[in-house]
Amino acid sequence: MTGKAPQPGIVAVIGTGVIGRSWARVFARAGLSVRMWDADPAHLEAAWAWFKADLKRSRKQHGLRKSIVRSERENVTRCASLAEALAGATYVQESGPERLDLKQALYRDLDALAAPKAILASSTSALDMTLIAEGLEGAERCVVAHPVNPPHIVPAVEVLGGERTHPRVVRRTMRFLERVGQAPVLLRRYVPGFLLNRMQAALVREAINLVVEGVASVEAVDAVVRDGLGLRWALMGPFGVANTNADGGVREYFERYGHSFQSLWADLKTDTVITPELLDRLGQAVDIMYRRVPPEVQRGWRDDMVERFRRLKATYPLGAPADGEE
Amino acid sequence: MTGKAPQPGIVAVIGTGVIGRSWARVFARAGLSVRMWDADPAHLEAAWAWFKADLKRSRKQHGLRKSIVRSERENVTRCASLAEALAGATYVQESGPERLDLKQALYRDLDALAAPKAILASSTSALDMTLIAEGLEGAERCVVAHPVNPPHIVPAVEVLGGERTHPRVVRRTMRFLERVGQAPVLLRRYVPGFLLNRMQAALVREAINLVVEGVASVEAVDAVVRDGLGLRWALMGPFGVANTNADGGVREYFERYGHSFQSLWADLKTDTVITPELLDRLGQAVDIMYRRVPPEVQRGWRDDMVERFRRLKATYPLGAPADGEE
Repeated sequence: MTGKAPQPGIVAVIGTGVIGRSWARVFARAGLSVRMWDADPAHLEAAWAWFKADLKRSRKQHGLRKSIVRSERENVTRCASLAEALAGATYVQESGPERLDLKQALYRDLDALAAPKAILASSTSALDMTLIAEGLEGAERCVVAHPVNPPHIVPAVEVLGGERTHPRVVRRTMRFLERVGQAPVLLRRYVPGFLLNRMQAALVREAINLVVEGVASVEAVDAVVRDGLGLRWALMGPFGVANTNADGGVREYFERYGHSFQSLWADLKTDTVITPELLDRLGQAVDIMYRRVPPEVQRGWRDDMVERFRRLKATYPLGAPADGEE
Repeated sequence: MTGKAPQPGIVAVIGTGVIGRSWARVFARAGLSVRMWDADPAHLEAAWAWFKADLKRSRKQHGLRKSIVRSERENVTRCASLAEALAGATYVQESGPERLDLKQALYRDLDALAAPKAILASSTSALDMTLIAEGLEGAERCVVAHPVNPPHIVPAVEVLGGERTHPRVVRRTMRFLERVGQAPVLLRRYVPGFLLNRMQAALVREAINLVVEGVASVEAVDAVVRDGLGLRWALMGPFGVANTNADGGVREYFERYGHSFQSLWADLKTDTVITPELLDRLGQAVDIMYRRVPPEVQRGWRDDMVERFRRLKATYPLGAPADGEE
């Protein structure tokens, strides 16, 4: 293997699309030196333009001092070659295209060029690290760190190894992600969609069914999540919610409502198909729902609000004394 | 039919368990006169004790003036008989036991005793108003208004009629609930579990599967919702999230990821069973997760935080100008 000895605090961001550019903010904000690289120089420039604009959005929203913004910006270097980006990096966050053959080729390069002890983490949302790292000398240092879009706003990251990943690499990745302010979540093994996309898919299927069956409008289905389920799930997962919804906690909850769950489960349709007609129908309904708000404004608002929620949660953690707090 | 002519601003809360007592806060807070009644006088007294304690929690959290708290408390009257509670009410919110025969008997009384134009709304989460109001003279004024627990904190309310419910009654119920600060959501027809519990059940099934299959711990599954999915769903429903997750909006999102959804859907298990062993396992895991925090503290924190989120959403609505806001 080639590559300089790793220096603490250097992170390589490989692939600078929507996910990669957001990772750059995570690491730069945490005070690390970030080396950005993309196979397409135009992507790299677009990511850099976005980085500066989003930093400005953050500054306005948080009322950050200019010196903080400048220091985050100065933490980022755009690199002309993969080797330059990897030089000295102790952690590599790869966010390339989601195709197994392309990932395998990229990991051969990463493994050859990165310092021997550097962690090679993939943002893949679908692929199995066992396959990505197949035949790779450094397979033990390859790990999945799948973020939620966009990672500099939404903290959860799903972490899992492939069959040959060293357990220490998984633990180091968890600790590293915590240190940069993310909320890493450990998976014991690979399943398609990991945790997040599986649970999301389960809910989305029923959301689509309710619209297709004519039970309610797209707007009504969204409202029930936004003004109901989501308000609790931003604070507690499904088991935590169950625990607070019966005086006897989660045991009593599922004892009392277990029968209702079973019969609802039996009633949920599973033969949902996404057709061109459905796409049109959803598109028209969403256009009407957000008719006065352009998509980039929706996205900016969502990001600002998630940041505000997270600051509230950090200010009032569960278990802290509540008396006289305001 | 008997009963005095309805006076604007009088609401009857019939059944004062966990849901009914919380409805009393919704209506009293909105400045309406609330008449509380329960078949069991001990339940009524317990609800009143809770009402006062929860009002105190709200006062602390919001920093409300004592006069506001006093006025909300003075809006509530405990009634010794059903007839007394219904006298003059224009809107009746029923939150009795979830058994069809008991509901049918109760609705015969409500229909006989309430003023002719009063709306009879049920908090039922499962029963069909077509059946509850079967054979009832006043079936056209009977409607379901199913809240999320607890309604004075979480605003979504699912509204739907039975077969004989007059469309005007459904519309009036929607307007009334909006006026008292809730977020009513219209269903076009009855399905078991309505919208909310169906979507929740779909997600909960997969959450349980992931634990049972050993993919991740109870805590990890909860964390992915709390630090990932839920942060977005507190702001936008599944269609709104899809719309912001692709530059071309919801159409492009489901076009691009439709195949992934289809294959995840095919992979989701549907034969989940809630066993006593599962209850033990979930109970133990949740005990450890919240080991330092008693259930009532968890619940109080959840309620406080949801109220804070809602105030943030009210302060920064989507589409409002964001520049120079802070």
